[in-house]
Amino acid sequence: MGIKVQTLKGFRDYLPEDMRLRNVVINKVRSVFESFGFEELQTPALETQEVLLNKYGEDAERLMYLFEDRGKRKVGMRYDLTVPLARVSATNQNLPKPFKRYQIQPVWRADNTQKGRYREFYQCDIDTVGSKSPLADAEIVRIIDAVFKVLNFNDYSIRINSRSVLFSVMGMAGVTKDLWMTAIQSIDKLDKKSQDEVVEELLNKGLKKEIVKSIFKNLLSAKPDDYLNKTIALALKMGVSKNNLVFDPILSRGLDYYTGPIFESVVKEPKIGSLTGGGRYDNLLKSLGGPDLPAVGTTFGIERIIDVMKELQLLRSDSSTTQVLVTVYGTEFFSESVELAEKLRASSVNTELYSSFEDKLGKQIKYADKRGIPFVAIIGEEESRKNEFKLKNMKSGETSALKLSGLAEAIETIGGLR
Amino acid sequence: MGIKVQTLKGFRDYLPEDMRLRNVVINKVRSVFESFGFEELQTPALETQEVLLNKYGEDAERLMYLFEDRGKRKVGMRYDLTVPLARVSATNQNLPKPFKRYQIQPVWRADNTQKGRYREFYQCDIDTVGSKSPLADAEIVRIIDAVFKVLNFNDYSIRINSRSVLFSVMGMAGVTKDLWMTAIQSIDKLDKKSQDEVVEELLNKGLKKEIVKSIFKNLLSAKPDDYLNKTIALALKMGVSKNNLVFDPILSRGLDYYTGPIFESVVKEPKIGSLTGGGRYDNLLKSLGGPDLPAVGTTFGIERIIDVMKELQLLRSDSSTTQVLVTVYGTEFFSESVELAEKLRASSVNTELYSSFEDKLGKQIKYADKRGIPFVAIIGEEESRKNEFKLKNMKSGETSALKLSGLAEAIETIGGLR
Repeated sequence: MGIKVQTLKGFRDYLPEDMRLRNVVINKVRSVFESFGFEELQTPALETQEVLLNKYGEDAERLMYLFEDRGKRKVGMRYDLTVPLARVSATNQNLPKPFKRYQIQPVWRADNTQKGRYREFYQCDIDTVGSKSPLADAEIVRIIDAVFKVLNFNDYSIRINSRSVLFSVMGMAGVTKDLWMTAIQSIDKLDKKSQDEVVEELLNKGLKKEIVKSIFKNLLSAKPDDYLNKTIALALKMGVSKNNLVFDPILSRGLDYYTGPIFESVVKEPKIGSLTGGGRYDNLLKSLGGPDLPAVGTTFGIERIIDVMKELQLLRSDSSTTQVLVTVYGTEFFSESVELAEKLRASSVNTELYSSFEDKLGKQIKYADKRGIPFVAIIGEEESRKNEFKLKNMKSGETSALKLSGLAEAIETIGGLR
Repeated sequence: MGIKVQTLKGFRDYLPEDMRLRNVVINKVRSVFESFGFEELQTPALETQEVLLNKYGEDAERLMYLFEDRGKRKVGMRYDLTVPLARVSATNQNLPKPFKRYQIQPVWRADNTQKGRYREFYQCDIDTVGSKSPLADAEIVRIIDAVFKVLNFNDYSIRINSRSVLFSVMGMAGVTKDLWMTAIQSIDKLDKKSQDEVVEELLNKGLKKEIVKSIFKNLLSAKPDDYLNKTIALALKMGVSKNNLVFDPILSRGLDYYTGPIFESVVKEPKIGSLTGGGRYDNLLKSLGGPDLPAVGTTFGIERIIDVMKELQLLRSDSSTTQVLVTVYGTEFFSESVELAEKLRASSVNTELYSSFEDKLGKQIKYADKRGIPFVAIIGEEESRKNEFKLKNMKSGETSALKLSGLAEAIETIGGLR
């Protein structure tokens, strides 16, 4: 392969040091989902083009990986997790309802890679299909809250609003119904643009000055509607802290399929945009070809969350999943090394046995260092005679002699080993 | 979508009931790998055709999903996990060696689906790259053994042989070198065909009757060579039981890239073929365009292992990951239900709160039954007054009254809840 051996543009390997961090985050998120009774769904990488097309609009379709397979079937790669959910709901109509599922799988989009975007990335969605109770909405908010807590985020807020709040703002301001969604999409930009710029955009969309003025006035005095009030009250009752849940009448979410509460969440630092986005979408599954079922859910921007955690140093990337390297001192003391390794594993300590008889101790320790393995255990002649082993802490450089018989305690005493 | 809403031929959804089983198996396997110091690697779904082609032979290439992306790049979907390993080894030459990685990802092959084969299925590989010590070979054998143990397989055996044993059998029988591999491939069929049929096949391949006779005589008296003896001795020392590791000079493994020990494993029941297959392949990475590094590893037929476990009833498929459904008795006692659910979750019990205020208790219990949730917790007026809750065991039908304050003990006393 020579010089041409490379990954495709926009694609990347996840090497062990990447996978460690990803697995920590994904496993925590998954545990939260399951603790609330959600179960995992996986769908195929390929779907028929009939399932994929005419669902997301032309701009999206230009980014899809579409092709003909050898059997001349028109197929495409998974583009998101919502259309597959609609398809699964349609092909498995007797799934118990509400159907509470989470899905964490890669999607593929031939996007412009210059913006730091990848063409293969994981999405992470959680949705309740088949409940029209505010309990379901509140639970999704509670789960967002639980995920941030379990990931040790401190300064986060979940912004919440409802499409009906926005619709009534538009109605009261006298916007004609056909312009509601486009006006809402402009309002959505108040996050990134100044009020003047948004006003300009609304005027350009054909709204009268007076009406635009009235929109902003109404936004300031907007109150949650009955359903949103119930959702917020239930979320608080479920344990979401008042400080973390903010009614924000400006929040609009660009997508036009939401029908009730909408929510997204942000951290104060770093400034990176929203980490989750979701809401209630009671008509979407049907319009995607699925059954006529109400649904509410959110997506977690899992790639962005991982980036934030790296930046906030909430994830340590320096140490391996392997906790101890047991060195090998020639064949003579090999039994002792094996025994120690097996005992450590039996105590749930991930333990690697060095895989050569020929390398000197120095080389073996260097290998542990390169791999980021935090402890090295050594058994040589002296140790073998005394029925003990030496444990070297690779960070502090300290070495202690420990008894083989008292291993469990040894593991406890060594702070940070687990 | 109507009648056309379906998955592609050869592709399937993994619904929650499938995912539960898969996750149990995959998590156990993953823990074993990590306990031996192996770390996870993931590679992209798409690679350049330059990476994929001219590696597996024409028959394989006919099964590949190859296409041109929108940028006219010739790309293809992941076909196995070995070529990606070679590519990663080539693009990341400074990875610490030995590089011990495992990889569990789907691959795509447009195979004939009539044989019960799928076009999308998971592969699970574990390999040590960069060690030419028998320690590395023995460790792979030990890991196969550890995986079977952790999955509660009883009657399994790991068959082991070496390419050099087979080569010396061929040499001693007077087979010309250019016919060694094809003769070995015939020998490999002794599993499925009678000796007469294999003899016939060898004769058809141009071997003389006398030589064929000699092959079989030599196979019967074949002994492990020095390297294989070391591998076996080390594997036994590492804890593999003698009963489970069988030297089998007939074992050949069809693929021609193995250079040293080869091993596969089978269970006595059900008769389903080998569950793992692997060996040492010191020249393969280079020939695939990777660096010139020795390697040894095995693939676990994870889909087949899951099938076997279902058949041997080693996997229970009847219960949800959700352990308790907390019912909701209207808004009046909602705080109590929420409190109970939160407490259960805090004790690591996956707990679903029923997501509607409007459904009667009977409907909520029916839902738990359909979902396979083993326990239902109920708090109504009486329970709330007494500061307790009722717990219904869905299997036995028994209901007990438990104190909210003594929840931890309650969880312990209820057998099978965890």
